[in-house]
Order: sequence, then C-alpha cells, then structure tokens
Amino acid sequence: MRKKIVILGSTGSIGQQTLEVVQKYSNEFEVVGLSGWENIRLLKEQISFFKPKVVVVKNEDTAKRLRKELNNLNIIKILWGIDGLIKISILEDIDITVVAITGIASLIPTFEAVKRGKKVALASKEAMVAAGELLIKEAKTRNAKILPIDSEHSAILQCLKNEQKDCVEKIILTASGGALYNFTETALNNVTVEDALNHPTWKMGKKVTIDSATLMNKGLEVIEAKWFFDIPANKIEVVIHPQSYVHSMVQFIDGTILAQIGEHDMKIPIQYALFHPNRISNNFSRLELTKVGQLTFKKPNFNKFPCIKLAYQALELGGTMPAVLNGANEIAVNAFLNSQIKFTAISQIIQDTMKEHKINHNPDINDILDADYWAREKAVNLCTNIK
Amino acid sequence: MRKKIVILGSTGSIGQQTLEVVQKYSNEFEVVGLSGWENIRLLKEQISFFKPKVVVVKNEDTAKRLRKELNNLNIIKILWGIDGLIKISILEDIDITVVAITGIASLIPTFEAVKRGKKVALASKEAMVAAGELLIKEAKTRNAKILPIDSEHSAILQCLKNEQKDCVEKIILTASGGALYNFTETALNNVTVEDALNHPTWKMGKKVTIDSATLMNKGLEVIEAKWFFDIPANKIEVVIHPQSYVHSMVQFIDGTILAQIGEHDMKIPIQYALFHPNRISNNFSRLELTKVGQLTFKKPNFNKFPCIKLAYQALELGGTMPAVLNGANEIAVNAFLNSQIKFTAISQIIQDTMKEHKINHNPDINDILDADYWAREKAVNLCTNIK
Repeated sequence: MRKKIVILGSTGSIGQQTLEVVQKYSNEFEVVGLSGWENIRLLKEQISFFKPKVVVVKNEDTAKRLRKELNNLNIIKILWGIDGLIKISILEDIDITVVAITGIASLIPTFEAVKRGKKVALASKEAMVAAGELLIKEAKTRNAKILPIDSEHSAILQCLKNEQKDCVEKIILTASGGALYNFTETALNNVTVEDALNHPTWKMGKKVTIDSATLMNKGLEVIEAKWFFDIPANKIEVVIHPQSYVHSMVQFIDGTILAQIGEHDMKIPIQYALFHPNRISNNFSRLELTKVGQLTFKKPNFNKFPCIKLAYQALELGGTMPAVLNGANEIAVNAFLNSQIKFTAISQIIQDTMKEHKINHNPDINDILDADYWAREKAVNLCTNIK
Repeated sequence: MRKKIVILGSTGSIGQQTLEVVQKYSNEFEVVGLSGWENIRLLKEQISFFKPKVVVVKNEDTAKRLRKELNNLNIIKILWGIDGLIKISILEDIDITVVAITGIASLIPTFEAVKRGKKVALASKEAMVAAGELLIKEAKTRNAKILPIDSEHSAILQCLKNEQKDCVEKIILTASGGALYNFTETALNNVTVEDALNHPTWKMGKKVTIDSATLMNKGLEVIEAKWFFDIPANKIEVVIHPQSYVHSMVQFIDGTILAQIGEHDMKIPIQYALFHPNRISNNFSRLELTKVGQLTFKKPNFNKFPCIKLAYQALELGGTMPAVLNGANEIAVNAFLNSQIKFTAISQIIQDTMKEHKINHNPDINDILDADYWAREKAVNLCTNIK
C-alpha cells in the first residue's frame, strides 16, 4: 500500500523538491494534501498532477480564486488559513506530514500532527527552535517521529545511526559561512540586500539565505540539534566549511569523526526523511570528491557574526527565550530585506529584544506563541526606532 | 571477567600499540600470549609487565636465550616457530587473537584461529589478500569474527555499521599516495630506499611504507575490502588523499557518502577492533579539522603506479593469483630495500611473476601456500636476472 503524504508548503522550494522525490517514487506515495498559500498557478499544476483530496490556501478569497481556476471542480476540498493547515496535517489516514512552511506558522500544525502520533518530516526550523522541548516531549509521549529535512540534521541523523547516544563526544555542524563570511567588519556595515542574498553554495529562500549570511541559520540549527538529538549545547560545535559538501559530522568518545558528505541537493535529505530508516536508490547527481579537489574548515568568528552567539545564549537561557530569538530574528531579517535596517542591525535588534524579555521557564504551546508575538511586536518597534 | 587476548607480533609497531591499548583498559583484558620473534629485549619487558602464560619466539635458540634472560623462570611457557604461533593463536580459553605479523607467516595462525571460531583482529593484510575467500568462508562456517586492524577497513566497517549491504554503491579507499606520489616517472627510476621510506603521514614498518610508495598497499587493501565487505572489485575505488585524515568512505545508493575521519593514530582502529561493536572512551589526541584547514582529493595515476592495477587484475583473476601477487611483492620489496633492484622494477617483477603463474581456481589453504612459495621462488629468480 502506498504511504499517504501531506505537504505543507508545497509551492515553496522544499515543497517542490519533496514533490519531485514523491513523483520519482509514485508507487510508494499517495499525495493526499497540499498547502500552497498564495501561489495559485503552481498549486493548480501540482493539483492536476498529484490529485490530492484536500488543499489549503491563504484565505477564503484565495480559495475562491483557486476553485474558479479548477473549473469549480468539486472533487477537491479547499481549506484556508492556519485552521486549514492544522486540519490537513492531522488527516486521519495520513502516514507522513511534511512541514515546509517558513516561519512560526509551522509550529501549530507540527505540534498537532505530533500530538496525533504522526510521522512528521520537518523542514521548518522555526517550530523546533521555538518549541523544541515541547515537541520532543510530546513526540515521546505520543510515539510520534519527527525527522529533519535539512542537510545538517539529516547528516547528523545518519552519522548517529545505531550508535549509542552516550558515545557522542560532540556534534560538529558545518556552515558555509554564507554570502558575507569574508567581508570585513566595516564592510558588513554597508552590505546591500543583494550582497547578502548572494549565497555561495545553496539556492534557498530569501529568509534562510539572510539567516546564512548572519550565521543565525547555524544558530537556529544548534538549537534544533539540541532537541533533535538530545545533546547539550556545549557539545555542539560550529565549523565553517565554505564548500558545503560535508553536511555535518559527529565526533565520538573514541576520537572517531563520522561525516556525511554529498552534493548540494535537498532531495537527498528529503528522500532520507521520507524513507527513514531505509536508503533508497536514486539517480540524483553524485558528488565526486576528486573533482571538488578540496574541502576546507575554519573556526567561525562569533564576534563578527554575533547572531550565533545569541542563539547559544537563548538555548542556555531556555524556556521562551529561543522563541523570542526566533521571532525577533524573523522581524529583523524582514526589515533588512525591506531596506528598513542595516545588516549589522539584525543582531542588535535580536539582542535588544532578548534583553527585555522575561523568560517563562516552563511554557506551554500558548506561552510560546505569546512570547513569539511579544518578540515580534518588540522587534518591530525597535526596527522603527533604529531607523 | 577480563577478555583473554593473544598478540602475534607484539614487538612490532601494531603489536606495541595494541599493548598500549590493552594497558589502558587493563580491567578489560588479560594478556595470555605474546609472540615477539627475535626482539628478546622488548619481549622481556612486555613479559614482565603483562605476565602472559605463553610466548613464542623465532626458534629453539632464541627460546633458550629468552629463558636465560628471564632467569630461567619456569612459570612461562616458551614456544617457537610457526608451530608455536599456531598453538598460541588457538589456545582454548582465549577470546581474541590479534594477528600483527608481517607477511604470509600470518596466514596459517589466522586460518587456524578462524577454524576454532575465535575472534581475530587482523592487522596482517597478507593473510586476507592471499586467502581472503577461504578465510571468510571458514569464518562463516565456524561463526568466527575477523575484524580489521587498519585505518581504512576500520573506517569502512564504521561507515557500514548497521547499513544494509545492498545499499552500498561503492567503497572509496583513501590513499596518502606514499612518499613518491609527486615524483615524475623519470624521477621514479632513480628513487633511493630513503626516498621511498619517507612517508608523509604515517609512521609504519619498512615493508608497508614501500608498499605505500608503490601504491601496492592500496592494491592489497582493495583485495582485502572485497573479502571483508563482500563487495565486488568494480565497486571499490581508490582516491588519493595526501593528508590521510579521511581514513576511507562509503557511498550509498542514495548518493550519500559517509566518511570516517580522525588522527593518524593506529590505536583508534586497534581499540575499535578489540571492543567492536562498542565505542569506548579514550584520551587519544583529537583531530581538529579547523587546525588541519584543508582536505584534498585527487584521482590516482595507475600508469605511474602500476602495482595497484596489478592488484585489481589479481583480484579479478582470482584463485591463487592474489597469493602470487602478494608473494612476488614481498620478494620484490625486499630486493628493493636491499638495493638489489630499482624502485620501478618492483611492479615489473610482480607482473612477470603473475604472467607465468597457472591459476588454481579452487585452491585450499595448502594450494595457496604452494602458490605463494612458487611466486617467491620465481620472483627471487627474476630479481637476480634483472640485476
């Protein structure tokens, strides 16, 4: 029997690549639901190809437009908004929910899917960053699986495969360094949006590309790694590896390092998450290390890129602080993308927001959302004032 | 209860490092037997520290000298010769036999230990090269374990841990390239013994250092890998990696490469073999990739270093041919070390020996030994004539 799959964010970069993988293994998967928010044109294409039973869009108006585009075809159910996302991610008979929506919007659908014991393939790092502790606790209670769809945590998952957890000495997350790693501190003050979007190795959405440039992306991944693998922050190290072929590593107590290496192709971690724990043959392009020639590694400069330091701090402070870090970061990045603030102000906004936050050390999911909301309001305010 | 261990070749480089590991975990191991061949001084030290019940030396005369050195202490049993090696490696109550003798002498003790269902930690590559098919077959029948003690196969073993064998796309063996990798073909004609012994990364015995310089070492490892991991030769690739930190890799059918990385420290694979499948904490020095800075990879030049091509050929031809390759190689390397032949003549001698060999396609252990003997005689002859 084919596995029933729902994809939240099917018109985004990861969503589209997930559908590519699903298409390659159409004997294995049946697409039951898709969410495409505003990109009606692409969503329509996906619907006609994969024939899902339910789709989710942004709001009632978008739903009407989509219905019209589909010639008022009534076989398909069209839902909208966060409610729609939640409904689609907990459909009774689905086997896998792929969560690939950017931002905090991913949190509630993920949480609800986990609560129903679903297998969740999680590409949205914000959910795990803001509410990792809750998600993992809930997953354990409900016997749900949360599998990472990103190259770093997929790499770590593979390096840890069937190793004893108490044999881990440290996790080594690799970071490309982003578009600006070699900029001087002075130059960082005058960075344009175009500079920051010019990622050296991965083609990704705008938000995550800016997060790469500030190194916040790696900071968020440190927080994710803590929850995915139950490893304390002081055992998670970040190493700059500009070529991005070594997707991450694990060092064990006997001095051995295992590394997962491969092409810059998100379809590899997507496929790994969908089929986990099995490896499935594919015809994706292969990395040839002799063509690459060299892999380099250097220590990150936390002073030049303070966001990563803030992420470690938020993780250490715990409670609602990682949600605040994440919320403030989303606002600050957006403000930078809109040329409202300078590149170097991103970390400043986050730091100032964190400073004013009163941590709730034992939050439930609503407290997390409140903290996120508070952080956004605060950060918006700070962005306006910095101007 | 402590595990009872016997070490063949305890005064050699691997033997000494095995004893270092054993000493660190003295609560885990009891050294029951040692073989030290001619190095009476060091063997005496090892005896007084580890207090084995039996030791093996080269011959009756060496045995008498050792007995005298030990003040005629009668608690310890002293055996000699190949018979002694066999007896010590199949002592009834031992748990692990470490085979770290250079050359074909390792074959019979390994085979006898395997026949008794022992766990064998194998550092001597010649045994597996000459008689891999027989050894593995026997190990399966007798439920014996053969674990590699060398950095490459230990790396592969770790990368394959709990992966499905049919998920392996290829094994990527790394080779430092040895002392002469960057020499021109002309320069290779005039290489001195000192040049060839000047290994860039690993400190090892003379035989294996020359094998590194000819790349035969990697050729022998290709043959070993075939038997250790039951992978056909066309799925075993060699890549030049001068820094020798990536000890080897496995590429899977989903495009993922797993690599095992670490310091140049044989104690790591030794410990891994002794404790397999567990990882045990140690205080060996840790590799810091950010200090190393870069790892490089290039394709090997099989024309400049034909030995590796000969090894693939011998593996493909099968039967007694790998034993012939190995025997001829031992003679040719020895002749080179004695300045009897030129560096570039090593591969020539092996090739010419192989050409004249009539393969036995279904050899037993005696046929293997006969082929080895034949190859040595032939190679000695060729070395003399080339002069």
